[in-house]
Amino acid sequence: MAKNVTQKLIESHLLDGEMKPGEEIGIKIDQALLQDATGTLVQLELEAMGLDRAKTEVAVQYVDHNLLQTDFKNADDHKFLRSASQRFGLWFSRPGNGVSHPVHMERFGKPGKTMVGSDSHTCAAGSLGMLAIGTGGLDVAAAIAGQPYFVKMPKVMGVKLTGKLPDWVSAKDVILEMLRRHDVKGGVGKIIEYYGDGLKALSAMDRHVIANMGAELGATTSVFPSDEETKRFLKSQNREEDWTELLADEGCEYEFHDEIILDDLVPLIALPTSPGNVVPVSEVAGKEIGQVVIGSSANPGLRDFWMASAIVKDKSISSDVSFDVNPTSRQIMQNMIENRTFGNLIKSGARFHQSGCMGCIGMGQAPASGTISLRTMPRNFPDRSGTKDDQVYLCSPETAAASALTGKITDPRDMEEKFGMQYPKFEYPTYEIINTYMLVAPVEDNTSVELQKGPNIKALPEIPELKESYKVPVLLKMGDNISTDEILKAGAEVLPFRSNLPEISKYSYTVIDETFYDRAMEVRDSRGGHVVVAADNYAQGSSREHAALAPKYLGQVAVIAKSYARIAWQNLINFGILPLEFTQESDYDLIEQGDDIELKDVISSVRSKEPIEVVIHKSNGEQKTIQTKHSLSGRQIDVLIKGGIINDFREKL
Amino acid sequence: MAKNVTQKLIESHLLDGEMKPGEEIGIKIDQALLQDATGTLVQLELEAMGLDRAKTEVAVQYVDHNLLQTDFKNADDHKFLRSASQRFGLWFSRPGNGVSHPVHMERFGKPGKTMVGSDSHTCAAGSLGMLAIGTGGLDVAAAIAGQPYFVKMPKVMGVKLTGKLPDWVSAKDVILEMLRRHDVKGGVGKIIEYYGDGLKALSAMDRHVIANMGAELGATTSVFPSDEETKRFLKSQNREEDWTELLADEGCEYEFHDEIILDDLVPLIALPTSPGNVVPVSEVAGKEIGQVVIGSSANPGLRDFWMASAIVKDKSISSDVSFDVNPTSRQIMQNMIENRTFGNLIKSGARFHQSGCMGCIGMGQAPASGTISLRTMPRNFPDRSGTKDDQVYLCSPETAAASALTGKITDPRDMEEKFGMQYPKFEYPTYEIINTYMLVAPVEDNTSVELQKGPNIKALPEIPELKESYKVPVLLKMGDNISTDEILKAGAEVLPFRSNLPEISKYSYTVIDETFYDRAMEVRDSRGGHVVVAADNYAQGSSREHAALAPKYLGQVAVIAKSYARIAWQNLINFGILPLEFTQESDYDLIEQGDDIELKDVISSVRSKEPIEVVIHKSNGEQKTIQTKHSLSGRQIDVLIKGGIINDFREKL
Repeated sequence: MAKNVTQKLIESHLLDGEMKPGEEIGIKIDQALLQDATGTLVQLELEAMGLDRAKTEVAVQYVDHNLLQTDFKNADDHKFLRSASQRFGLWFSRPGNGVSHPVHMERFGKPGKTMVGSDSHTCAAGSLGMLAIGTGGLDVAAAIAGQPYFVKMPKVMGVKLTGKLPDWVSAKDVILEMLRRHDVKGGVGKIIEYYGDGLKALSAMDRHVIANMGAELGATTSVFPSDEETKRFLKSQNREEDWTELLADEGCEYEFHDEIILDDLVPLIALPTSPGNVVPVSEVAGKEIGQVVIGSSANPGLRDFWMASAIVKDKSISSDVSFDVNPTSRQIMQNMIENRTFGNLIKSGARFHQSGCMGCIGMGQAPASGTISLRTMPRNFPDRSGTKDDQVYLCSPETAAASALTGKITDPRDMEEKFGMQYPKFEYPTYEIINTYMLVAPVEDNTSVELQKGPNIKALPEIPELKESYKVPVLLKMGDNISTDEILKAGAEVLPFRSNLPEISKYSYTVIDETFYDRAMEVRDSRGGHVVVAADNYAQGSSREHAALAPKYLGQVAVIAKSYARIAWQNLINFGILPLEFTQESDYDLIEQGDDIELKDVISSVRSKEPIEVVIHKSNGEQKTIQTKHSLSGRQIDVLIKGGIINDFREKL
Repeated sequence: MAKNVTQKLIESHLLDGEMKPGEEIGIKIDQALLQDATGTLVQLELEAMGLDRAKTEVAVQYVDHNLLQTDFKNADDHKFLRSASQRFGLWFSRPGNGVSHPVHMERFGKPGKTMVGSDSHTCAAGSLGMLAIGTGGLDVAAAIAGQPYFVKMPKVMGVKLTGKLPDWVSAKDVILEMLRRHDVKGGVGKIIEYYGDGLKALSAMDRHVIANMGAELGATTSVFPSDEETKRFLKSQNREEDWTELLADEGCEYEFHDEIILDDLVPLIALPTSPGNVVPVSEVAGKEIGQVVIGSSANPGLRDFWMASAIVKDKSISSDVSFDVNPTSRQIMQNMIENRTFGNLIKSGARFHQSGCMGCIGMGQAPASGTISLRTMPRNFPDRSGTKDDQVYLCSPETAAASALTGKITDPRDMEEKFGMQYPKFEYPTYEIINTYMLVAPVEDNTSVELQKGPNIKALPEIPELKESYKVPVLLKMGDNISTDEILKAGAEVLPFRSNLPEISKYSYTVIDETFYDRAMEVRDSRGGHVVVAADNYAQGSSREHAALAPKYLGQVAVIAKSYARIAWQNLINFGILPLEFTQESDYDLIEQGDDIELKDVISSVRSKEPIEVVIHKSNGEQKTIQTKHSLSGRQIDVLIKGGIINDFREKL
């Protein structure tokens, strides 16, 4: 049977299950990517698992998110991540070496390989013919520990690209066109595979631009074939030997279809406050802007910076515009210096920032109030820039640079008329300058390395195994649609404690009830913990693991709810919290905050999949008994009884 | 009579008083320098004064301190400063253009001119034969408004430099030697004037390094002659026409004397936590380090970066070291790119940050806990880096770069043996690359410019004139040595409100009494304000103006104290608060918090310099009368009665 690239990638790595859309499959993982904002927890999880050494072919810890060191915490985290990378046999990409995705592509990406990464834009590696999926930290830790990655077999959308991009239109406009058509949920449950003659004129780094923002489409990942251009790219990185061809078979099929005629595209722009809010640049041209930012994993390549510099060369950017540039990596910066891109940008008035994600994740470069910020970045969700009620527009480097010159949103095609400029043509160098001084290789004798933990970094506590019986208080009764933001909020106050579970736990449920932490600590040891009760869709929203881990640290034994959000439900199990469901939804009304809950014969009833009896003890001595249930798989039951996935791994390793 | 350079500078600008040490003199001010951290208040003061247009020859608003934009506030301040600079006829150096002192030297500094600046390192301009004094914001505002600058005539210390610096020893070691000899109070009340044959081998930018850290000696300022080297420097900046010779007369005298034989100097280093804590590098060589930072106004020049790059060229910096580089200005960065300094530093593993003060004022680059940070910066006061209990060492670029390579504090002279390296010799280019794209010139039609104030920027409120009588409560009774940090604290929580008096006022006296703000607001309008009582040395410490302005905003009419710290006493008068002193110190015991204080015939008694009667009303109806006094000059009495210096200027303008 003729296969597409996605099917070939999965088939060659299938360890478990059948390749039928919707069925759970287990895939062998070759590579792992960590960034610092999620990586500290992953490394603490590896420590808690007692991992000897990484089992993946390549695992790399990048430091690109938290580069602003306004106190000791981020610098301490960098030091910890370095020591942990050495301890567990990972590569360590030092702070300043650059954004994970382009650096990984340049130094480690390999056609035909699989990868998981604790960053949503991990899908960018699909540009080289890899199957690369962004996922939660524990899944990455599991992959590093040699476990398969479990995922429901997605459907594949084939997107045929034909023709050639017109002048002043570039790869970013291709993915913006996809977002214009499919919006931010159009890729959910799908892998998007690009094919067709149009690929010939798209460089590997152009493909990175397109693959990267598959995350904004909601796709499981993006996939490109590995072809002659892939070979040229790897050769330019002095890694020609890492190339293998990986093409879709003639006559292969896709579950969904789309086609983009590249010649028909125009410069596009995403309006505030969604990447899916796409219109032609010409529709909003003329609006005054206060900032232009170039960089991020969505437009990371040498070509993108070169293009911006070629447009502003020997001209002054508008004096009303802050023209912020983040070179994505030190390697790209060295090449930019060599081909004068860097000097031309500086000369025109650019503000340069250290290589990393920076403004893309609200780490600096927040725009002034009430001003428009034009960015080559992937996301413009409300307030993500750090400024409340921000107005962030997403566009190509061409549109960004043209607008920086005029101080207004500008269709780059107008440069010909306004500045008498021909569209600059970039020539890829045969060999790029390569320098690995800031990539620290794994060491041989890794088990003797000591973890270096600053005062804000605390080891994960031991999570106890499930007990046979509990009689614990109901500390909180909540309604429908409680989000993980309400369970454990994000933001500048809380995030610096991401490596410090005892401290971050103090923020558990504070949005709902400020007394929760004190009340939970009071009963954690004396009463053996607590339960909370919720109605429908408990823990929707962000996938953050702390929303299960922190309550667990405070002694949470079980949640009893009408229903759960999918990822959060998995997180509860992973961290050893029993996610019970009311058999009769109306029983929700029988439990009040302050009641005691008695659970008997827990282990045997969880195993038996029989209803689990819950005895409600009222403060007046009254008792009621209700039935609850769960929908855990056999594997999940084992994990839960052991106190979560870390304990499970510890046993296996 | 033979005169030294200092005397010539003062004499040519003397408007008031006699040049006798200790006597108050009024000096005509030619230039003014503002940075952003202090400048927002200065610009609000100019607005409050109703200034039409700056009266100085040159006034420049720089933006170099608050460059990290983690929310809207700093970006809004930048926009405000730009609009205010245009409104009042100032130059505006945009964010990213660089640190005020080197940029000012390169583009505006002129031998024979006077300058005040709202930054303590303003003294760096002494390198070009200027009299440049760092001072409080209102003094700078006054100078911009055409008023003389009043200062007590300082004594002059002549420092004779002879010989020539050995290899691996540079200008930073000269000023560290001064600090080793005189410590951080050795320059108090003095101007330090350098002379002698040794000057020949010190470039203008070397002299900047030495003049800059006059601030750390506590000196009023530092002064160098304007000679052939000054001419060469101005020529390299394409400003040869701005040069005039300014030399000390033969046989001139100095009140104090010192001499440094340059040939005898060795690489020096200031240990934590004072710039005066200086020892030879060899004494601490071998200590492991975690960070090296190159940049700041203390080592700002092209030569300093070139030297560091020449030392690390084609080598990898130690993988244990974060090698942070702040190019001081965009101009220096362009020249660094041109002469390959930039590329060499990047290649070796440097992390580059935007041009500005950055880590020097704790804005990023905080070191990891328990690690040594080596910096070419001017200050290493405790926790200034942003990391508690930090270990910051100050040194030359030579020492910093050598140590970055080895990962240990390293005497740069060891480079010859360890790396077979000859001391690199820098050749100054005849003409530097110059580019003024980021310097926005004053506009002609300035009065029509509107101030652009974000939501965090509030105009200064009207300050009422002194009234004839008051009966107001004593809201706080304090003890000895209350510091301005206790009156209005600094730090990351408070500083972002520096342009927002209503908001920053909420932090008044919170260190002493968290209820103060609420209590003061309760009586501000209903009772006509309040007084506070203190013992000796009220408001010692930092010179921050907010420690007077914020209490004034809350309705503070008077302070009654046993004695005052000098600068704070001036600030109280400047902002219209009556600084009364007990005639009998024991009367301090008669007043209690909660008493009412009645002041009658205030204006006439302040004018008459007679004792001022204060009636104490106890809550039980009891009354006591005590005598108080003040030591204001006639000019100060006028200022106070008008409600402070802003009202005074508003009347004059």
